[in-house]
Amino acid sequence: MPTHTPDFAARVRASFALQHAMDLIHASLPLVEPGHTEIHVPHWEGIEQQHGFVHGGVVGMIADSAAGYAAMSVVPEDASVLTVEYKMNLLAPADGEKLIARGKVVRPGRTLIVTQAEVFALKNGQEKLCALMQQTIMVMHGKAEK
Amino acid sequence: MPTHTPDFAARVRASFALQHAMDLIHASLPLVEPGHTEIHVPHWEGIEQQHGFVHGGVVGMIADSAAGYAAMSVVPEDASVLTVEYKMNLLAPADGEKLIARGKVVRPGRTLIVTQAEVFALKNGQEKLCALMQQTIMVMHGKAEK
Amino acid sequence: MPTHTPDFAARVRASFALQHAMDLIHASLPLVEPGHTEIHVPHWEGIEQQHGFVHGGVVGMIADSAAGYAAMSVVPEDASVLTVEYKMNLLAPADGEKLIARGKVVRPGRTLIVTQAEVFALKNGQEKLCALMQQTIMVMHGKAEK
Amino acid sequence: MPTHTPDFAARVRASFALQHAMDLIHASLPLVEPGHTEIHVPHWEGIEQQHGFVHGGVVGMIADSAAGYAAMSVVPEDASVLTVEYKMNLLAPADGEKLIARGKVVRPGRTLIVTQAEVFALKNGQEKLCALMQQTIMVMHGKAEK
Repeated sequence: MPTHTPDFAARVRASFALQHAMDLIHASLPLVEPGHTEIHVPHWEGIEQQHGFVHGGVVGMIADSAAGYAAMSVVPEDASVLTVEYKMNLLAPADGEKLIARGKVVRPGRTLIVTQAEVFALKNGQEKLCALMQQTIMVMHGKAEK
Repeated sequence: MPTHTPDFAARVRASFALQHAMDLIHASLPLVEPGHTEIHVPHWEGIEQQHGFVHGGVVGMIADSAAGYAAMSVVPEDASVLTVEYKMNLLAPADGEKLIARGKVVRPGRTLIVTQAEVFALKNGQEKLCALMQQTIMVMHGKAEK
Repeated sequence: MPTHTPDFAARVRASFALQHAMDLIHASLPLVEPGHTEIHVPHWEGIEQQHGFVHGGVVGMIADSAAGYAAMSVVPEDASVLTVEYKMNLLAPADGEKLIARGKVVRPGRTLIVTQAEVFALKNGQEKLCALMQQTIMVMHGKAEK
Repeated sequence: MPTHTPDFAARVRASFALQHAMDLIHASLPLVEPGHTEIHVPHWEGIEQQHGFVHGGVVGMIADSAAGYAAMSVVPEDASVLTVEYKMNLLAPADGEKLIARGKVVRPGRTLIVTQAEVFALKNGQEKLCALMQQTIMVMHGKAEK
């Protein structure tokens, strides 16, 4: 398991709370563990695409954020993180009552952290994988958020 | 230039109008040409991340959509399009009064279309490149939207 | 586990045997299971980059092939496969006596198959992850190899 | 145009000359300009895949290298470069007498450089685009090659 500071969860939650865009789509962050986070979004009309599924862009937003916060959970107190790039495959329509994005650190590093995220649609109690992401995160040392 | 049907722009605009998620972030589609579209989003508080820039997820949403609609503009009337995957590099903070995503078809195909998108932040009349995307789109023949 | 034909391993091995480029780098295919393959390459001088590690391009070749053959192992007899695209993160120098690429099917589909591959460097009996790949494969029905 | 040192071309050529893997596939580096390089590979039997085209892995090798050397051409004398990741779309079979990979810097940066590469197959005097790559390069300051 990657190293982490005592207050990693508080720092991650504080950052998430400042993101208006996460509020806009009704996202929450129910899980923050070292090298692992979950972001949830209920299905609601405002985030739909033309067929009534959740928009792929919203799927991308929570995959990117869940993995980015997984990376942030393992950096030093005085560091922040930036998404360098990510690649996402959309595997199935985001069809369900709720989306769950699970981000995890695959390979921690001092300057770069490689992560993955999976996004599941929860429908009638069943999770279905709808997106898979691989991401590169940059660590900004000496640049804590706020 | 890729081939296109007479009503390509009307079909693209009709699809865009049905995407609640584009409305949610205040996106518009001012340009639809064969193999090329533009999506604009004004900077407003609801789409910000924790530093007051536009959230990378929103940058991703409009890059994905601009390139996807560029692909839709060159498919037959009875076809729709799906994003298979995309890869995006975030090059600079989305800092400006407005974001402009330009999507274009790089290589049209019967089943798969490869596209690219660039997202620029417009600040004091200057455009700055803030994201670069490469994307694969699948064409669904015989499955027109609606 | 994905479905597969009785002769899947024979078809995969026959295709691999025809690839001169795999021979050129001294690659072998010691494992073919449904939805999973392994390609091995010994470290030798001819495939090195300027620092004496195995060239990243060779790492990419075997990741792409291992995952592509994982996909081929689950398609019908009359179908072949094509790499549409892949994305690879290079995590560490390919430093060891041998490289092992493990490809697997993540999500089978009729037209598209999504796969992943990991490449490990084996050094003094220890495996170290040196590359991570996410890939999209297209299934060509009615176009068996040969 | 990105900044570059007086000896950028000599440093790039010296690095290329040390890559046994480039020699193995018969690659040459006929062009090195600031932020731009070309790698050529003649079609020969040793680099073929099972259908007689050039192996996609070889296409990937020269795309990765052409773009990586484009990045190296714009870094300081005391710096070297590493491929962090790349994403490649294979657009057409590599069918021709010769492959030409053109790499270019899209966005230089102190720590990270974003590049693109295109690979063309030259057949009967006509170039056909067969691959498109987007790549992230890391600059290692104070770690010149050799």
